[in-house]
Amino acid sequence: MNLKKEIREIPDYPKVGISFKDVTSLFKNKEALQFVTNSIVDNFKEKGITKVVGLEARGFVFGGAIANKLDAGFIPIRKKGKLPGAVISESYELEYGMDSVEMHSDALEKDDVILIHDDLLATGGTAVAALNLAKKCGVKTIYFSFICDLEFIDTPNKTILKEYETQVLVKYQ
Amino acid sequence: MNLKKEIREIPDYPKVGISFKDVTSLFKNKEALQFVTNSIVDNFKEKGITKVVGLEARGFVFGGAIANKLDAGFIPIRKKGKLPGAVISESYELEYGMDSVEMHSDALEKDDVILIHDDLLATGGTAVAALNLAKKCGVKTIYFSFICDLEFIDTPNKTILKEYETQVLVKYQ
Repeated sequence: MNLKKEIREIPDYPKVGISFKDVTSLFKNKEALQFVTNSIVDNFKEKGITKVVGLEARGFVFGGAIANKLDAGFIPIRKKGKLPGAVISESYELEYGMDSVEMHSDALEKDDVILIHDDLLATGGTAVAALNLAKKCGVKTIYFSFICDLEFIDTPNKTILKEYETQVLVKYQ
Repeated sequence: MNLKKEIREIPDYPKVGISFKDVTSLFKNKEALQFVTNSIVDNFKEKGITKVVGLEARGFVFGGAIANKLDAGFIPIRKKGKLPGAVISESYELEYGMDSVEMHSDALEKDDVILIHDDLLATGGTAVAALNLAKKCGVKTIYFSFICDLEFIDTPNKTILKEYETQVLVKYQ
């Protein structure tokens, strides 16, 4: 399946000059939804994944489906102030200023083998923040899965992520 | 499986006197995640569901998993301003003031049979907003699925929802 065709591009969103990759068109298409889920599950099914970590909010959609098919638990990483229990936090840089993401402090354990999933890798800010949250918990192994990688955006975060086995389904050069 | 035991309660969150039902403890437990997914899928598998509609953000987790297992598409309903394409909106009442949710205007069609899913039914404000968005699209049949229903909260919204076939897994009286 040519997934790139299934991902609608929205010109000048969220601002002029940016062509936004809208994965909701892919969620909506049941064949594409099956294809993406199966592609990720097939890639990681021999890895002994114990928890799938999904990044709010689009990372929850396939995150839940993958966790179900890999027979793993699902852990949400959310924007600041959204999780009700005790949390650990990690900041990341925005274009202007900083933001932070949080995870429940009891979410991951030392023997967990985790798959961190998000729909899109752009600057890698939230992905590295998620990585740092997982490292704070001392998990055994960390893998990454993204539907899209905007490869034309090159950042120091992406150099950090290169050390981890990562599956990307659609690359934009 | 006694699901109520798997849902952590957080006292005095988000404010004093409220015992918050934290479904993230259920997401984390792989047996509970399988049990919930299978319970919902088994209940709706003969209904010809074409799209699962998930409410941001916790409704995306099982929403994605259910869509995958029912071989349906997944449609997100999001808070105002989060969807990149053309949207239709619906307002709902908060304790103080109003808020609104949005759905892509091309998300649903007249012959769709939909399952609207969220983790928790409290006042029913966002559930009825989702219902109104679906009705605007003129879909064929609408079902609902909630993990929890706070039955002790009685509102006019809940009277509206009673007209629709609804599955609830955990009831709080």
